[in-house]
Amino acid sequence: MMDSPSYLFKGLDDDHLEIIYAIMKSSPMEEGHQIFTEGQEAKELFVLSKGAVELTTTVENDFELPISILRTAGEVLGVSSIVPPYCYSLSARCVEKGELGRIDRLELQNLMESDHALGSAILTNLSAYFLDRLKETRQELKIHFKMLLKSTRL
Amino acid sequence: MMDSPSYLFKGLDDDHLEIIYAIMKSSPMEEGHQIFTEGQEAKELFVLSKGAVELTTTVENDFELPISILRTAGEVLGVSSIVPPYCYSLSARCVEKGELGRIDRLELQNLMESDHALGSAILTNLSAYFLDRLKETRQELKIHFKMLLKSTRL
Repeated sequence: MMDSPSYLFKGLDDDHLEIIYAIMKSSPMEEGHQIFTEGQEAKELFVLSKGAVELTTTVENDFELPISILRTAGEVLGVSSIVPPYCYSLSARCVEKGELGRIDRLELQNLMESDHALGSAILTNLSAYFLDRLKETRQELKIHFKMLLKSTRL
Repeated sequence: MMDSPSYLFKGLDDDHLEIIYAIMKSSPMEEGHQIFTEGQEAKELFVLSKGAVELTTTVENDFELPISILRTAGEVLGVSSIVPPYCYSLSARCVEKGELGRIDRLELQNLMESDHALGSAILTNLSAYFLDRLKETRQELKIHFKMLLKSTRL
């Protein structure tokens, strides 16, 4: 795990990485397993070690819109567990069996509150990640908007 | 200013708020004034004191898609100045004359790095804000997607 740090732990020194890995538990995941569901309380943060996970969001209560598929070791999912109100904003399902690192939200919170330098480093990475996703999602909106502009010949 | 703390400074104690306000400069803004432009280096964070500011993003190089209008004292703009790569992700223009608080990015960074408790508090608020905007933007995408589903009768 130490050789595949995620974007969330970028810039952390080895001592901090060791503290993080010390509270990470590993568990296997099978294809089709629902890791978490949109709207649920976010009790855990996950780090992909092996396999693939699909992230989706529900439209009209019965249609799942795919958001992305994570395949790279070190990818993080369930970051809503770091941010109030601690509620998963997407659903995650295993689409290729593998292994997941799991970090309990409260244990991570305790670490980040007792070591604010560690907390700041993780939160800076998280903010940069959210801002990237926000830009990406706005970009998709722009594409839809362009299509609308063209179809209405404005 | 002390009576209208922004979401970004939520939960800060009075000492921390005073430190922030000490590096904030106030300047008037006139209607039509371009405060910052999408893609520019984000050198300053702004706090609205009075008046109104419109946030937009550019589509097709010549069309400005409105994102929101800020009218409430304490609203923050230019938060890209807190997050690498420090580049404004939207454009901001004054649409009703008023007054802006301005905080130099490097001064704020110095504060946040020399006082990690302050840094963590601001970054937690910022992450929660980005996550909200991300959910909101995804929600808009879902609406477009629903329209598409209906128009293609899938």
